[in-house]
Amino acid sequence: MINLCLFGAGRIGSIHAATVDRTSGVCIRYVVDVHVASANTLASQYGAKVTDVATALADPEVHGVIIASSTNTHADLIERSAMAGKAIFCEKPVDLDLDRVRRCVEVVNECGVPCAMGFNRRFDPQFSTLKKAIVSGRVGELETLSITSRDPSPPPLDYIKVSGGLFKDMMIHDLDMARWLLDEEPVELFAAASCQVDRAIGEAGDVDTAMVTLKTASGKLCHVSNSRRAVYGYDQRIEAFGSGGMAQANNVLESNVVVTNKAGPLAERPMHFFLERYEEAYRLEMADFIACMRGEGPPLTNIEDGLKALILAEAAIESYNTGQAVTL
Amino acid sequence: MINLCLFGAGRIGSIHAATVDRTSGVCIRYVVDVHVASANTLASQYGAKVTDVATALADPEVHGVIIASSTNTHADLIERSAMAGKAIFCEKPVDLDLDRVRRCVEVVNECGVPCAMGFNRRFDPQFSTLKKAIVSGRVGELETLSITSRDPSPPPLDYIKVSGGLFKDMMIHDLDMARWLLDEEPVELFAAASCQVDRAIGEAGDVDTAMVTLKTASGKLCHVSNSRRAVYGYDQRIEAFGSGGMAQANNVLESNVVVTNKAGPLAERPMHFFLERYEEAYRLEMADFIACMRGEGPPLTNIEDGLKALILAEAAIESYNTGQAVTL
Amino acid sequence: MINLCLFGAGRIGSIHAATVDRTSGVCIRYVVDVHVASANTLASQYGAKVTDVATALADPEVHGVIIASSTNTHADLIERSAMAGKAIFCEKPVDLDLDRVRRCVEVVNECGVPCAMGFNRRFDPQFSTLKKAIVSGRVGELETLSITSRDPSPPPLDYIKVSGGLFKDMMIHDLDMARWLLDEEPVELFAAASCQVDRAIGEAGDVDTAMVTLKTASGKLCHVSNSRRAVYGYDQRIEAFGSGGMAQANNVLESNVVVTNKAGPLAERPMHFFLERYEEAYRLEMADFIACMRGEGPPLTNIEDGLKALILAEAAIESYNTGQAVTL
Amino acid sequence: MINLCLFGAGRIGSIHAATVDRTSGVCIRYVVDVHVASANTLASQYGAKVTDVATALADPEVHGVIIASSTNTHADLIERSAMAGKAIFCEKPVDLDLDRVRRCVEVVNECGVPCAMGFNRRFDPQFSTLKKAIVSGRVGELETLSITSRDPSPPPLDYIKVSGGLFKDMMIHDLDMARWLLDEEPVELFAAASCQVDRAIGEAGDVDTAMVTLKTASGKLCHVSNSRRAVYGYDQRIEAFGSGGMAQANNVLESNVVVTNKAGPLAERPMHFFLERYEEAYRLEMADFIACMRGEGPPLTNIEDGLKALILAEAAIESYNTGQAVTL
Repeated sequence: MINLCLFGAGRIGSIHAATVDRTSGVCIRYVVDVHVASANTLASQYGAKVTDVATALADPEVHGVIIASSTNTHADLIERSAMAGKAIFCEKPVDLDLDRVRRCVEVVNECGVPCAMGFNRRFDPQFSTLKKAIVSGRVGELETLSITSRDPSPPPLDYIKVSGGLFKDMMIHDLDMARWLLDEEPVELFAAASCQVDRAIGEAGDVDTAMVTLKTASGKLCHVSNSRRAVYGYDQRIEAFGSGGMAQANNVLESNVVVTNKAGPLAERPMHFFLERYEEAYRLEMADFIACMRGEGPPLTNIEDGLKALILAEAAIESYNTGQAVTL
Repeated sequence: MINLCLFGAGRIGSIHAATVDRTSGVCIRYVVDVHVASANTLASQYGAKVTDVATALADPEVHGVIIASSTNTHADLIERSAMAGKAIFCEKPVDLDLDRVRRCVEVVNECGVPCAMGFNRRFDPQFSTLKKAIVSGRVGELETLSITSRDPSPPPLDYIKVSGGLFKDMMIHDLDMARWLLDEEPVELFAAASCQVDRAIGEAGDVDTAMVTLKTASGKLCHVSNSRRAVYGYDQRIEAFGSGGMAQANNVLESNVVVTNKAGPLAERPMHFFLERYEEAYRLEMADFIACMRGEGPPLTNIEDGLKALILAEAAIESYNTGQAVTL
Repeated sequence: MINLCLFGAGRIGSIHAATVDRTSGVCIRYVVDVHVASANTLASQYGAKVTDVATALADPEVHGVIIASSTNTHADLIERSAMAGKAIFCEKPVDLDLDRVRRCVEVVNECGVPCAMGFNRRFDPQFSTLKKAIVSGRVGELETLSITSRDPSPPPLDYIKVSGGLFKDMMIHDLDMARWLLDEEPVELFAAASCQVDRAIGEAGDVDTAMVTLKTASGKLCHVSNSRRAVYGYDQRIEAFGSGGMAQANNVLESNVVVTNKAGPLAERPMHFFLERYEEAYRLEMADFIACMRGEGPPLTNIEDGLKALILAEAAIESYNTGQAVTL
Repeated sequence: MINLCLFGAGRIGSIHAATVDRTSGVCIRYVVDVHVASANTLASQYGAKVTDVATALADPEVHGVIIASSTNTHADLIERSAMAGKAIFCEKPVDLDLDRVRRCVEVVNECGVPCAMGFNRRFDPQFSTLKKAIVSGRVGELETLSITSRDPSPPPLDYIKVSGGLFKDMMIHDLDMARWLLDEEPVELFAAASCQVDRAIGEAGDVDTAMVTLKTASGKLCHVSNSRRAVYGYDQRIEAFGSGGMAQANNVLESNVVVTNKAGPLAERPMHFFLERYEEAYRLEMADFIACMRGEGPPLTNIEDGLKALILAEAAIESYNTGQAVTL
């Protein structure tokens, strides 16, 4: 039996706990959360104990940890878990501060533990099918990539203020996808952005609409387009273009039913937000982490990916602030 | 805790057992199967006991039964379970013989137990969305229905010989869908059929390609098209047309990725067969049965539906044999 | 220069005249119409003379005729033109009476002139692409065919009364498509029909909704579905299914623009009616007739096709009236 | 009768001549081309005379000119035609040199003649439908625009060398579309580009793959993606996103037939190149010019649009060369 400790009993922690519970041979042994009621609820649901960080990490029977607590606790929990020799799964980001992340990467590397990052989109069946199409040469040599990512509506202003901003909070997922699909590091980045959705977001020092261009050493070009609001729901699409053709991962709709009346054929909306759209991805990223703990190979993502995506997000911020391209 | 007895530990029985296992407050108490090894495997997986029919039905703590054994055992098990006062979920068909089914219906009615039939397609999210579109008036007054249902490949000849033939074995699902979506009983039926897929099927006395036309008293028309083979996979589509428009439930593809190369844009295949396509439907029909046992209302299907679909299948056989339309 | 005489200066006659005018080496020499004003307008537009039937047919410089006058004049004009040795293009139907058509076929055959029928759908780029897909083996051996054909709205009651009814007036196009695509004559036909769109149509002795099933000697099955009204426009689709796959000719939409808002992705309506949808088909059928007159081969359709489609339409009427299948 | 003089009897000149010929009340009076044989062919086809520039412009009965000759003759012909008081339709670009274009604009403005530019895409039914969707508010307030434009294959190297390069030769169309659809001038531009299709293009000093980001004063963002080669054909798509939703103009396929076999559903390729895809657009832009000459209002495009698109193309070149964003 593989025993896990879950840090953070909120929405995403609950999802991971449910996935673990459905996997034979794995269980949540401890739940740790500053909000005790949430911890109790989750723990009782899955036969786990509520405890503190130190106790959980001191238990030699705990093989791994899932870090799903608030962002400002990630780096510390990663380091303490790494030093305790636990396998780590951590929600993105490692931290909003680049230096803090770098130190964290060093600790993880020194301790030699696996540290998977919650870049869930890599596990989405649409995008992993796209990745397979690229890798298997169905588009020939990849030349350009276009990533569209729009949320149905902006998060609360209070969240935006502590989120690190659109580039670190939202686009970081797309930047990771760009790195993964390009399979080559960007060497140049340009960001254009504006506040068009809600003036209050701008007043809070953030943007809500952004376009980033990445270029790799071999000349591959990548475009990322973000908006904090799409009235039709979560818009998650990627187009890969190359010497042999094009592969497009389109939105997943609520159903395939089309109703045609006087106005024309009306399809269903895209799945509303990440919980619905990436339900399977959350399941698969946890399965990947469990497989890693079982010695079946390294996880698909690691803390270096977390670092490199953050470097790109920081470069995007710099580019936006200076109005100039950034060399990486 | 609701306790269930599972008759039949084969493929479909395993699916239902897994669904029950994931539902809190419900468990499989007994597994009954003439193939003892299968029964043991399933029982040990879900903490159930292997037993015989009599013992299981005699246990007053058993609230319901899931009949997923071979077709020729269904009617007996329904009657014995009904007389034991158990709630029943039975895979289709009740029996291949119409009189036997009629007697079975009487027993169930006398005993006053719920008897849900495994017409899983009613629970498919595509088709239930279509049903909602019809019921909510999005196509106006329903006028015609067109049901396309093709298997990826024919079952083994040995199965075909005992299956009751295409109309009772395969089209019965579509005939149930027709009744459900039309919301009005057909009064006239015409069947045309032939053997085009595999000559051996014809030699075994069956057909592999069929078209049936149904007409209701109010004049609604319904077309059903069946083939035992579609090289591109499981083809399951329905189109409802009415005074206000048209609703189409299209195939569910393996993903939404489209690869465009010199040949053109290539989408993915439909999900290969019923286990993939109707995975969610199997889960939802069991949830419906469990809800019924919890007193939340009658199941969406019942044994009368099983009888009426069989009557239509028998009429199709008669029409095919005589070359003439059948009045119902 | 190839000189043509146009009988009928109405809507469809004008379309053919415009096509001829755009073709170098061909001209309309005469226009004949009982409605003299229409004849004058068209004639002056294209530099033609208005005359009567006898004069036009007596002119040895007239190589061919286009018969686009009212249905009840077709058979006479065909016979007189054939006896005058002119190549003939005639709008469907030859006549509403089967015996009259048969006599007409005899005359045409005796005179040895080509007689193309205006089954315009054979020339539609969508359907000719479908035909090519079938002929080139892309669906393997053809097994079933499904034709959906719905008008945006019923014609005026006055027209319905003289039209010969839905089967001869509307479905005859689909029956011709069935014959052409099946490439094998139907031997059995069953028709179900009702009046659901407008009660007045029923009171006029006609139906407005119909489904027909055809079967060929080799067992191929074909379904035709008609409605006199589709609120979303002209619905013209065909699906061919066979041992190697399926080919579908979908509707042509007003544009490929899709607008996605809160309600979901809304595509554009199908082209409204035959004048828009079959614009290119009208051009191509005339080009085919002109090519025939230039000695480049027989036309794609001929008067035998007109006869055979009418035989199927008559069988559909008989089947509908008797409620039984008809052997052909 | 409106009389036109056609400068340039090549491919695009022939298309315009054919359009004029089909329009009643308009004719080509003169054809001028240094390649006399081409001029003779076209002239004889449409009953025009072959002449020289001076003679054509001196004829007071000539109301307008169509400039479809080689790029290096455009500016002179525009100026001479303007000074002769003729209405002008000129293929893009006015000239590859910005100062030359500016002088040309001055001359046109002083002479007060209309000068339509051949930005044919504005007339494409797909894109004009998209424009209508934006203008009518169906996407709410426009926030971002994404233009994808890929040629099926690169032009000959000899052409590339005199073309002015990808930005002025190819992307200029997209830059015009951006201006037209944004309905607001860009104030900032960034270009990334590379040579991935054919090394020889790079050796000729050009790029074959490019992405440009535009930003307007109000914060609207626009992305343009170009490639000189798409194996699947001409890829011409635009997506407009705003506060109320999204409008997408998708590719026009060769037909709507979809063939589904073991590999999955295969749709048809996009129309191969501009002559097919923009056939209707060429017809409509000429109709717009003719309407202008008839006094029905100014043309949809004018020489200022030619100037402004070129300014953007020059800025893209500068941005690509410096690696930095350009303020406009």
